[in-house]
Amino acid sequence: MQNFRQYLPILDWGRRYNRNTFSNDMIAAVIVTIMLIPQSLAYALLAGLPPEAGIYASIAPIVLYAIFGTSRALAVGPVAVVSLLTASAIGQVAETGTAGYAIAALTLAFLSGGFLVLLGIFRLGFLANFLSHPVIAGFITASGILIAVSQLPHILGISAHGHTLPQMLSSIFAHLNQINWITVIIGGTATAFLFWVRKNLKPLLKRMGLSALMADILTKAGPVVAVVTTTVSVWLFGFADKGVKIVGEVPQSLPPLTMPSLSPDLLGSLLMPAILISIIGFVESISVAQTLAAKKRQQIDPNQELIGLGAANLGAAFTGGFPVTGGFSRSVVNFDAGSETPAAGIYTAMGLAIAALFLTPLVFFLPKATLAATIIVAVLSLVDLTILKKTWNYNRDDFLAVLATILLTLTLGVEVGVASGVTISILLHLYKTSRPHVAEVGLVPGSQHFRNIHRHDVETDPSLLTLRVDESLYFINARFLQDMVQARVTEGTEIKNVILMFSAVNEVDYSALESLEAINLRLKDMGVGFHLSEVKGPVMDRLKTSHLIHDLNCDVFL
Amino acid sequence: MQNFRQYLPILDWGRRYNRNTFSNDMIAAVIVTIMLIPQSLAYALLAGLPPEAGIYASIAPIVLYAIFGTSRALAVGPVAVVSLLTASAIGQVAETGTAGYAIAALTLAFLSGGFLVLLGIFRLGFLANFLSHPVIAGFITASGILIAVSQLPHILGISAHGHTLPQMLSSIFAHLNQINWITVIIGGTATAFLFWVRKNLKPLLKRMGLSALMADILTKAGPVVAVVTTTVSVWLFGFADKGVKIVGEVPQSLPPLTMPSLSPDLLGSLLMPAILISIIGFVESISVAQTLAAKKRQQIDPNQELIGLGAANLGAAFTGGFPVTGGFSRSVVNFDAGSETPAAGIYTAMGLAIAALFLTPLVFFLPKATLAATIIVAVLSLVDLTILKKTWNYNRDDFLAVLATILLTLTLGVEVGVASGVTISILLHLYKTSRPHVAEVGLVPGSQHFRNIHRHDVETDPSLLTLRVDESLYFINARFLQDMVQARVTEGTEIKNVILMFSAVNEVDYSALESLEAINLRLKDMGVGFHLSEVKGPVMDRLKTSHLIHDLNCDVFL
Repeated sequence: MQNFRQYLPILDWGRRYNRNTFSNDMIAAVIVTIMLIPQSLAYALLAGLPPEAGIYASIAPIVLYAIFGTSRALAVGPVAVVSLLTASAIGQVAETGTAGYAIAALTLAFLSGGFLVLLGIFRLGFLANFLSHPVIAGFITASGILIAVSQLPHILGISAHGHTLPQMLSSIFAHLNQINWITVIIGGTATAFLFWVRKNLKPLLKRMGLSALMADILTKAGPVVAVVTTTVSVWLFGFADKGVKIVGEVPQSLPPLTMPSLSPDLLGSLLMPAILISIIGFVESISVAQTLAAKKRQQIDPNQELIGLGAANLGAAFTGGFPVTGGFSRSVVNFDAGSETPAAGIYTAMGLAIAALFLTPLVFFLPKATLAATIIVAVLSLVDLTILKKTWNYNRDDFLAVLATILLTLTLGVEVGVASGVTISILLHLYKTSRPHVAEVGLVPGSQHFRNIHRHDVETDPSLLTLRVDESLYFINARFLQDMVQARVTEGTEIKNVILMFSAVNEVDYSALESLEAINLRLKDMGVGFHLSEVKGPVMDRLKTSHLIHDLNCDVFL
Repeated sequence: MQNFRQYLPILDWGRRYNRNTFSNDMIAAVIVTIMLIPQSLAYALLAGLPPEAGIYASIAPIVLYAIFGTSRALAVGPVAVVSLLTASAIGQVAETGTAGYAIAALTLAFLSGGFLVLLGIFRLGFLANFLSHPVIAGFITASGILIAVSQLPHILGISAHGHTLPQMLSSIFAHLNQINWITVIIGGTATAFLFWVRKNLKPLLKRMGLSALMADILTKAGPVVAVVTTTVSVWLFGFADKGVKIVGEVPQSLPPLTMPSLSPDLLGSLLMPAILISIIGFVESISVAQTLAAKKRQQIDPNQELIGLGAANLGAAFTGGFPVTGGFSRSVVNFDAGSETPAAGIYTAMGLAIAALFLTPLVFFLPKATLAATIIVAVLSLVDLTILKKTWNYNRDDFLAVLATILLTLTLGVEVGVASGVTISILLHLYKTSRPHVAEVGLVPGSQHFRNIHRHDVETDPSLLTLRVDESLYFINARFLQDMVQARVTEGTEIKNVILMFSAVNEVDYSALESLEAINLRLKDMGVGFHLSEVKGPVMDRLKTSHLIHDLNCDVFL
């Protein structure tokens, strides 16, 4: 039962549900639903899918996360970066607008959901740690730039394509002659308005005497105002006949039952992108969830989160959606609007289902340029080039990882960018640990303490070399120690005994064991004694299972 | 000048050369030359190249290594594992016996040489550390099995192919009807004889009163006896007309001047195999060199070794050879036979050049089965399945890496095998370090020492959580600490202050810095104070360049 409840957090909060939490959750749900309608349409556009896909992707996933997830406030659905990754992955296997494209999106959500659930069941959430913070920051920044540029054609009323910055820019320049000036005016005004709302509306409303919370919620409703105003203008003035691209007919329907493709070819070519989307999505989601949970001293279980997000993606795959994750802005609105339990998510899903059934005719005249404007304004807040300066000041290795991630994401695409960033971080880390800190030590006069001979005034004996090893020994650094001891003994021909102090060695792997054996044999060949001292208990237990301790040409001091 | 001499070790030992070292080097060279003739022919056969390529690959490379290398005793030339890797890599781009095959071999040596020289110049020898000892041991064992099986067709007189164990075995079974019984008798007898020589001849000779050294050298001459005997038999009884495959005509010539291909396609498809061959060859060579150097308390410079081996491979590329490295058996014979300087290598090269010019007609009737027998007996000594038991007893992670490397090398080929082994070792290592050791500590009564609360009887205060972090913090383990602190504080609601003791933290990377900032902010949201204590000087200097120290919701104890 304990185990069962662990996988179904709903059993936990559901039992304590009452009228008070219900009304708080309901208010939050109404606010989030209103905000989500334009956002869902926009992210579907970004992913290259029909607008309804964005709404469908917010219904079943939100409910499934409410059942399986551990965060009380997280709102799951399409988010900018994951939508960009979706467009990039599917763009390689199908043409936008075809049935194959939509099926590929379902398949991507299916693979991503399956992968997340597997990671959760096998408790492999630690894999997300391979994305260092600088790599994530660099990737998000580069993605923000890519997304903003990818929306420029909608603002200009031209058709341009590409998945990297050079491709996009050259395609935009090549199509500049197709520019539609009415679209530019609508898109430009909407963008300017949304920037103004984001920057100036909240202080203005507060000065007008509204509470901080109300000011915040009204500010977040900016996109709704832009959507209503531009839709009405297009309808009134018949701009659609003058080349302004509109959303057009959106089916009035609940999310349909859909099936992802099981074609081995498609699964094969979407597997790597699905893994990438899962991990990026998980990292984004868990950091939002942890931040919000901390504010109420609540607990998040990262492995259960994987199952919650996995279930949400599987839900998206079978209900006409595309890959989803926990989004930052929608979760913050949900939290600030006072949601108390995941039930708020269920009510939001109901609100969106009602919208999908009854409100879609209202967006017929909504210009795509307005959606593009909401995306641009939203993602430019992701772009943070100060990470370059921060890492440069703090640590050059981290700077290198950020820079490579940004440049490669922009020029070679999102997959190459992230993969290179991860590889560079791991290589730099392994390089750093390949030279463990080893200090030559001597005895502090009149004591039993050993200290670094370069930092302290200590007694040394030219026939004795004492080295304190300050890190665990394993394959990456084992050979360094071996070379170092051999070099040191070859230089100092008067050396008769070598002692390795293992006070800070927590582990010795098999490679390091063999290096110690090689040191032992080589020192024996040179007629030099070899000793270990201050070996920790667990390390000693393991060394005892090997031949080293018996073969040591001298002994071990404890 | 110092720098110049660093890159040309010959300037060092050349100045001290005298008549005594000359005669010692000369004796060693004669012995090594005699041993190398059959070995070179055999490894050319293994690599799928004409026999003379093996001799050419031992001439220029040996001289170039003598000039640039740092080992006094290392003998460079074709070795079994590198020949296998060569056959596997070239087999994917050309047909055995074609001109394209030989050119691909030159190109592989060229790429490998260039890569090694680059690694040496940029002092990147540490990359070899990525091959952990268990991965190398597993790979060498699996390669030994693959090589032995690849020679069975020559012993049976059939033609069978394949680069993995299943491919080879099924090809051998499919061709069993072509079996040539005379070949089987020659090959079988040679194999049995060579096994007997290796196992029993040395003790026998010693009992007969020979010195250990002479007994050893005569034992190593076993292949020469097998070659002479079987060649004479084939010539006398005309077995070549009865289907016994012989070496046939070998050109009488000094090594020719050859050019590797510069076709981008070929270079592209041979680049990864060349990198693999370089690193495997370097690891094998450096460990032989270090072992022999230690016996005379001599120094090996790993980065200069890269340049020496790189020069040797470039030499092979331009003189009709194929990839080479420092070989174990030939180096040990060279060392035991009393060579004192790399000049011994130069004399060996002269001996082989004379053999290439005058002796090649003598091997016309040499049966390929005899060469196969020498290979089988040589490589079976590489097969050491006890590594499985040793690692199983010592450490399950290392066992897993060995097992995967052996199985994947045998079933999917050498490249996949090594790549998987390396990936598995790195992932297992990162996984282990993703959970740093963190101990909850309390004050030892009446002292200023903090100790683990689970191991010692210490004073604790329920409003204070003190955690001692026992490892450096970086991106792989940063999130673990973050989750752990958050979980611990959420459980213990009476906690008012958290102290992290950094006495064992040598480094905090940018990801870990951001995790500390996140911990700080979240604890602040929970109304809990956050403190760092015993921060080391260099770590503190770096933390001071960030905002963390200023933002800390409380202070830092030193």
